[in-house]
Amino acid sequence: MLSKNTVKFIKSLHQKKYRSEHSKFFVEGEKSVVEVLSSDFKTDLLIATDSFLDKNHTLISKSKIEVIQATQKQLESLGQYQSNDSALAVVRMKDNQGFIPSNDELILALDDVRDPGNLGTIIRIADWYGIKNLVFSQQTADFYNPKVIQSTMGSFTRVNFFYSDLEEVLKSWNLPVYGAFLEGENIHKLSKVEPGVILMGNESKGISQEVGELVTQKITIPAFGSAESLNVAIATAVFCDNFKRLIS
Amino acid sequence: MLSKNTVKFIKSLHQKKYRSEHSKFFVEGEKSVVEVLSSDFKTDLLIATDSFLDKNHTLISKSKIEVIQATQKQLESLGQYQSNDSALAVVRMKDNQGFIPSNDELILALDDVRDPGNLGTIIRIADWYGIKNLVFSQQTADFYNPKVIQSTMGSFTRVNFFYSDLEEVLKSWNLPVYGAFLEGENIHKLSKVEPGVILMGNESKGISQEVGELVTQKITIPAFGSAESLNVAIATAVFCDNFKRLIS
Repeated sequence: MLSKNTVKFIKSLHQKKYRSEHSKFFVEGEKSVVEVLSSDFKTDLLIATDSFLDKNHTLISKSKIEVIQATQKQLESLGQYQSNDSALAVVRMKDNQGFIPSNDELILALDDVRDPGNLGTIIRIADWYGIKNLVFSQQTADFYNPKVIQSTMGSFTRVNFFYSDLEEVLKSWNLPVYGAFLEGENIHKLSKVEPGVILMGNESKGISQEVGELVTQKITIPAFGSAESLNVAIATAVFCDNFKRLIS
Repeated sequence: MLSKNTVKFIKSLHQKKYRSEHSKFFVEGEKSVVEVLSSDFKTDLLIATDSFLDKNHTLISKSKIEVIQATQKQLESLGQYQSNDSALAVVRMKDNQGFIPSNDELILALDDVRDPGNLGTIIRIADWYGIKNLVFSQQTADFYNPKVIQSTMGSFTRVNFFYSDLEEVLKSWNLPVYGAFLEGENIHKLSKVEPGVILMGNESKGISQEVGELVTQKITIPAFGSAESLNVAIATAVFCDNFKRLIS
């Protein structure tokens, strides 16, 4: 049974402060919960409807986690989904561990992407284009924000990421850094690119000056009409698409 | 002064039913209001703060519209923006008029794109890539929905569009129709494309069977990772980017 304390605890995880304090976050909806149960994330608690439990019996019994049966109405009061007739999982955050990039991969770096929907969409794009490793500036939206998790459509389980001082990290890697700017080389005119870091900036300010100084090639998406800019997730997709076309 | 009736009228425009009844919609925020005042849309009423009126004096006096001075708080209570310290305009809808496509342009057709944020983002993408003409199925989100207008970032003033029976329209045009499918020709392998119609489908169901039968070439964005799909606005951007690269 769902206790008052559990309800209070899960509701606290809507806020970054409490997610950090407990090193836990929640995942909701059938698809995402199934993906997180099948991933290398450690799930502590599963709150689910009978039908979800029946349907995913094998997966759940394998993972030996605490299970609480709940109604759709209870699930909807816990999470942010307007409609949730399946499940909500409380999951442990991963350590904020760096990675050593190889010389033949594309890495995505985000300099202060603030909107959770944009971050989630970017993670889904990275997963589509087979980009495994992402690095975020400290001011980038929180990966574990429920809106981020929701917008990734399950892709949050398949990427590595860490938050860091982008300047330091990019300096230490010493890889080509391709920065998205409104003025730069036309991405359609590139005939060859080396693997390296695709760097995207903040929604309104773009790439900060400090991080921008580490860019080895400024690249732009050519405008054919009159819009002033593209949304950062849209621009990320266009960058990934062009780079994967040229590299693979 | 802002009368009770005006407040009631503007609040009614949040709903499609009343927008259709009055053939009017509203636009809010400095950038979008300035764009709509400079466009071929006919603005009937401008509600604005003193500072907006001062700053845009020339533009406003030229357009001879009714102006009501209001506070930030009043503006915020009228529209959907959490913060609006500038203006809100009540604007006349355009007639739902078709267009005759030329043989050398790209046209965007949407088959039941339901999410207003997606539609708005797609309109901004069309404007970036210089696509002037769009056609929407009857079930596509309402162009005049405040969330659509907001997500276009002003681009709604620079596209032509109409709602229609897509099947009929595509048949009558007799142009190449490039449909976005999860299985089809790899968009990266195309070496040449003729101008024609880029057709995108519904967020969950994709392109409907009836409309799909009019597709002359099924095209797919290659997946390099494990995400099951891309958001429709993201896919639209990748299609437009590849087509413009090949055509221009």
